[in-house]
Amino acid sequence: MASVEIIAVGTEMLLGQLVDTNTPYIASKLAENGVDVFATHAVGDNRERIAAAVRAALQRADGVITTGGLGPTVDDLTKEAVCDALEVDAELHEPSLRAMEKVFEKSGRRMRENNRKQALAPRGAVVLENHEGTAPGFIAIAKNQKFVASMPGVPREMKPMLIEGVLPWLHRRFNLSQHIRTRTLHTIGIAESEIDHRIADLFATLENPKIAVLAHQFRCDVKIMAKAASEDDAIALTAPVEHELLERLDGHIYGVDDQTLPGAIHVLLQQTRRTLAVAESCTGGSIAAALTSVAGASKSFVGGIVSYDNAVKSALLGVRADELERSGAVSEAVAAQMAAGVREKLGSSIGLSITGIAGPTGGSPEKPIGLVWLGIADASGLRTRRLQLSGDREGIQSRATTAALGFLWETLNSAEPLAPFKA
Amino acid sequence: MASVEIIAVGTEMLLGQLVDTNTPYIASKLAENGVDVFATHAVGDNRERIAAAVRAALQRADGVITTGGLGPTVDDLTKEAVCDALEVDAELHEPSLRAMEKVFEKSGRRMRENNRKQALAPRGAVVLENHEGTAPGFIAIAKNQKFVASMPGVPREMKPMLIEGVLPWLHRRFNLSQHIRTRTLHTIGIAESEIDHRIADLFATLENPKIAVLAHQFRCDVKIMAKAASEDDAIALTAPVEHELLERLDGHIYGVDDQTLPGAIHVLLQQTRRTLAVAESCTGGSIAAALTSVAGASKSFVGGIVSYDNAVKSALLGVRADELERSGAVSEAVAAQMAAGVREKLGSSIGLSITGIAGPTGGSPEKPIGLVWLGIADASGLRTRRLQLSGDREGIQSRATTAALGFLWETLNSAEPLAPFKA
Repeated sequence: MASVEIIAVGTEMLLGQLVDTNTPYIASKLAENGVDVFATHAVGDNRERIAAAVRAALQRADGVITTGGLGPTVDDLTKEAVCDALEVDAELHEPSLRAMEKVFEKSGRRMRENNRKQALAPRGAVVLENHEGTAPGFIAIAKNQKFVASMPGVPREMKPMLIEGVLPWLHRRFNLSQHIRTRTLHTIGIAESEIDHRIADLFATLENPKIAVLAHQFRCDVKIMAKAASEDDAIALTAPVEHELLERLDGHIYGVDDQTLPGAIHVLLQQTRRTLAVAESCTGGSIAAALTSVAGASKSFVGGIVSYDNAVKSALLGVRADELERSGAVSEAVAAQMAAGVREKLGSSIGLSITGIAGPTGGSPEKPIGLVWLGIADASGLRTRRLQLSGDREGIQSRATTAALGFLWETLNSAEPLAPFKA
Repeated sequence: MASVEIIAVGTEMLLGQLVDTNTPYIASKLAENGVDVFATHAVGDNRERIAAAVRAALQRADGVITTGGLGPTVDDLTKEAVCDALEVDAELHEPSLRAMEKVFEKSGRRMRENNRKQALAPRGAVVLENHEGTAPGFIAIAKNQKFVASMPGVPREMKPMLIEGVLPWLHRRFNLSQHIRTRTLHTIGIAESEIDHRIADLFATLENPKIAVLAHQFRCDVKIMAKAASEDDAIALTAPVEHELLERLDGHIYGVDDQTLPGAIHVLLQQTRRTLAVAESCTGGSIAAALTSVAGASKSFVGGIVSYDNAVKSALLGVRADELERSGAVSEAVAAQMAAGVREKLGSSIGLSITGIAGPTGGSPEKPIGLVWLGIADASGLRTRRLQLSGDREGIQSRATTAALGFLWETLNSAEPLAPFKA
């Protein structure tokens, strides 16, 4: 098994001004490809310290992956430090220089002398093209056959270089026979403890693939991870387990891998040619924003009303003033009238509503902070749900948004009709 | 000047499953207190590797701060590794044991044998109380007088321990005479290049305090950083520069430090007892959601209409069908009618509107993806603004939200009346 340490270069990180997202990304990709990460580091823009960190890491692991410090400024010192650590010179890489000249020509900007520095690479290194910027990366080999792969710090430039350049090289170099396949099943409307209960036997007996349950805000993921010699073998390992999980968690899995909850809702709406409108109080537009984050949302999402003020609930959604008076704005009756009202007002097939108390003030013993009522209305009837959420204002708003989308997905996914309207 | 390295302990980080937010937090607090951070590291739950990382860091810096690995499970090995690195034994810390017994008694849970492990500390170490959990932290001194401060990995437990325990200890130990004060002025509606132009002389001449410009999505921050022997001295250094910047950037600074753009808008609305309603198309509810993220938003925010479908623009906002036909949904005329319409419909003093093309489809040569029209209406008149934004759907929606809030803040902050309605 190949082992690696990751070094992120940049003084901003040591000042806490920049959160390094490159290292977790690289670490997760290495894990998927069966490469062991011993440690990760961040060092400043300091030639001696970068070189020392590279040297130390190469004593422990088979290689080092660095990000950052490949730019044209005097602060960009990674290449020089790697040369120091490996005791090699830098040499001009002609194809990189020509590629850079083309980029500058095209953009009409003048190429400065310090840009030429970016076309240098440690002697004998494999140069990695940068399709998103001017700084190429490289993989240099030490005298003891260990390696240093250096990539730019801009995530947009680093990610394709890792996937298209560094990982294939690692596969060839270390003959990585291991293919790691993960499938992530997204569930909603089922508690972590209930999932544990339903799959306890799989948990206890499965070794490859392994399964893991990850709890998020108001929803859980079930992850299947298999190691095999080829992708086909890995699929052969995960497929039956995925099938088994789909059965055991039937009615709760809204998607796999990249599918999102709003995305899954749009799929269900479009399959049945239904349209949706939402009426929000405590979430203040977050549900509508989540639904419109999906490209092509306009095919099934009509619009929404944020009825923050009670007067808006009455005037725009037709919530009866006597109901607001009697039951209060956060009540089952008002949620029901909001759902029916927004559906009617916006002319959609389905109306979704939410009313609740997000805090930090406005709670009472009968209606504490975190109390939320959801409503769904269609032509035939109504469904409501009560929730008691915990957390601060931001947490309650975020959990309420997921809970409302989950309630909607479950309802759209179920064959059961809504309860008929009361007379 | 004292120097430190930070080590985060936990295998999840090496697998890319957890993004470490503790290290940037600690690094920023150390920077504020004039402590130099040489490097940061993450290592797995492995006793030998943690000990080796601590030993190596102590050769470079005056001390090490670790997070994580202080829990009761067999995977929690930081304390053992620190004892190895410093060549000392662990001993029972009676007050910690008694405090822990109390917590368990109170919660009615049974204290297990492995919990007792948490009451151990390296011999001679200063024990740091944990007010948020059961794992105490500690500061141990090596034979060569260097130190290791270990804190739990749960941010809620770590943060107060750093502020109340570790930082005061560092001040005493290293006689930190340096007080670092930062003030962050948040600007809107002014380009980074224009800010640079207006403060170029300050940039070039100021050493202490230093200033820096940080560009964000559609807004910029100007940071003032001063080093001094006391807080009073630091204030004396920053205050005149802050005053100067406020003058030079007059009309563009919406807040300082923790103030947010939605928060600043609520302040202006409440000062003048005005209320607001919003009509959103391309941002799909994000502007309303940003405005309602502020506690107490209901004092000035009435509600909003997400008019995703053109039919909603007509039916609910009173946008004329012939205008939609003639100018199209993304046009100055429609933005103006939406702003006036939502104001009237929701009975607020001010109406804010946005209509645009977020992509990835729907653009044309005349109206490309990223084209956005904003509108603001009050009792006396109207104001509109055209934007051409770049990026993917998510980027355009996010920048459009900030741009709309910025346009609103500028308008509320300005004494100039809106243009009268055309006949």
